[in-house]
Amino acid sequence: MSTAIRMVGFDADDTLWKSEDYYRAAEAEFRRIVGGYIDLADLGGRLYEVEKRNLAVFGYGAKGMVLSMTEAAIEVTGARITATDIHRIVSLGRELLQHPVEVLPGIPAAVDAVAEHWPVVLITKGDLFHQEAKVRTSGLAGRFERIEVVSEKDVDTYARLFHEFGVEPEEFVMVGNSLRSDIAPVLELGGAGVHMPYHVTWAHEAEHDVDAAHPRLRQVGDASGIAAAVADLAFGNG
Amino acid sequence: MSTAIRMVGFDADDTLWKSEDYYRAAEAEFRRIVGGYIDLADLGGRLYEVEKRNLAVFGYGAKGMVLSMTEAAIEVTGARITATDIHRIVSLGRELLQHPVEVLPGIPAAVDAVAEHWPVVLITKGDLFHQEAKVRTSGLAGRFERIEVVSEKDVDTYARLFHEFGVEPEEFVMVGNSLRSDIAPVLELGGAGVHMPYHVTWAHEAEHDVDAAHPRLRQVGDASGIAAAVADLAFGNG
Repeated sequence: MSTAIRMVGFDADDTLWKSEDYYRAAEAEFRRIVGGYIDLADLGGRLYEVEKRNLAVFGYGAKGMVLSMTEAAIEVTGARITATDIHRIVSLGRELLQHPVEVLPGIPAAVDAVAEHWPVVLITKGDLFHQEAKVRTSGLAGRFERIEVVSEKDVDTYARLFHEFGVEPEEFVMVGNSLRSDIAPVLELGGAGVHMPYHVTWAHEAEHDVDAAHPRLRQVGDASGIAAAVADLAFGNG
Repeated sequence: MSTAIRMVGFDADDTLWKSEDYYRAAEAEFRRIVGGYIDLADLGGRLYEVEKRNLAVFGYGAKGMVLSMTEAAIEVTGARITATDIHRIVSLGRELLQHPVEVLPGIPAAVDAVAEHWPVVLITKGDLFHQEAKVRTSGLAGRFERIEVVSEKDVDTYARLFHEFGVEPEEFVMVGNSLRSDIAPVLELGGAGVHMPYHVTWAHEAEHDVDAAHPRLRQVGDASGIAAAVADLAFGNG
C-alpha cells in the first residue's frame, strides 16, 4: 500500500451531471438574440471578456452569467437592444437555474463502488442556491457524507476543507472534470486526482498547467473507470 | 446555571454590518428609473411580488434582486424601458455587490466579549460569493471558529449545522436582527436567541410568529447589550 487514502471527493457539474451543455445552449441563444443587431464575428470573445472581468464581482454561476450577458448585449449593440430582447436574455438565466439534472452514465454505481471503501464528499463551485437545488434533485445527496458549495476551488479552499474534514492532503483523492479546479490545487497540496474529461470545457476552466504524467494523477474515459483509478492510487505501485 | 451554553452564533447582514440600507437605496434608485415611464403609486408592492415569486428560482442576494428588478422594470413598463436604463439597473447590482462593509457600532467588542466565554460562529444567508467577500473585508473573520453561508435559515438548516458543529440545540444561542431567520427556527429547535432589531427590515424578514415573551429570548437595543444577554441566557434564572 503506497498511500493511505482516507477520503474521496467528487466534483458535481460535468462530473456527476450535465451542466456545461446548458450554458453552451444559453450562449448560442444569446448569440442569436444579439446577432439580430450586430455582426457576430467577434462576439464570442467579447462575451468571454466581459464574463471574465465580471467574475470578480458576480462570481460563478447562472446568475452572474446572465448579468454579464445583459451588460455585454447592451455594450455590443450600443444600447440599441430592446427591453423585450433583454427579457429573453434574463429568461435564459431562469431556464439555466431550472434545467433538468441529468446524472451522467454510470455515476451512481461509481460513487457507490468508491463509497464501499472510503467516505465520499461532494465539493462543488458556484451559486449556493442553484448547487443545493441540483444536489437535491439529482437523487445523489444521500451518498455523500458532506456537501460543500464553495466560491472558488483553489489551494486555500481545499486546505480549509481538509482541515474541516480532519484529513491530510496525502489522504485525499479528488475526482472531477476540471484540471484547473479539481486536480491542480489538490496535487499541489500533496493529494491525488482522478481526471474524467467532459466533452466540453468552459474556456476559464481550460486555463491550467497540470503535467499529464503526474504520479498522483489518473485519467479515466468515463465513470466506469473511477473506482479502479482510486484503488490504483490507494493500493497501486504508482 | 439553568442552561449549559456551548456555542454562540452571529448573523451577519444588519447584525455585524449595515446591509438593508444599501438594498433600500438601490430600490429607491430603481423607482426613480422606472418612475420615468410609469406612475409609481403601486410599484413598491409589485416589485416585492416579482421578488418573492423569484426567490424560489434566484434565491436571496443582490444578483437575484437585480434580475428581479430587471424583469419587473420590463414588465411594468410594458417593455418600453430603454437598454440604457436597464444598464443602470444592472449597475445597481454591481454597486450592491461592492458596497463598503461598515461594521455596526460596538460589534467587535461585543463579539470579543462573547468569544471570551464561548466559541462563536457566523451563520449568514445569501449569495456565497458576496457574503464571503463581505466577511473578508469586514476584518471580523478571524474572530469566528466557523463561517457558514447558507441558502435558507430554517429549522432544517440549523439542525444540520448543529450536527456539524457537534452541539445540541439547547447548548446554542443565536444573535441576530431577524426574528424570522435568526430567532424563530432556533427557538423551535430548543435553542435560545438574542434579538437585536435593525432600524429597517425587509418585508420578507418581517413575516414571523415569535412570542416576544418567550423564556429563551432576549432583546437588546444595540451591540453593547449582547454579551450580557447571552450571559443571562446561560446563567440567569430565566
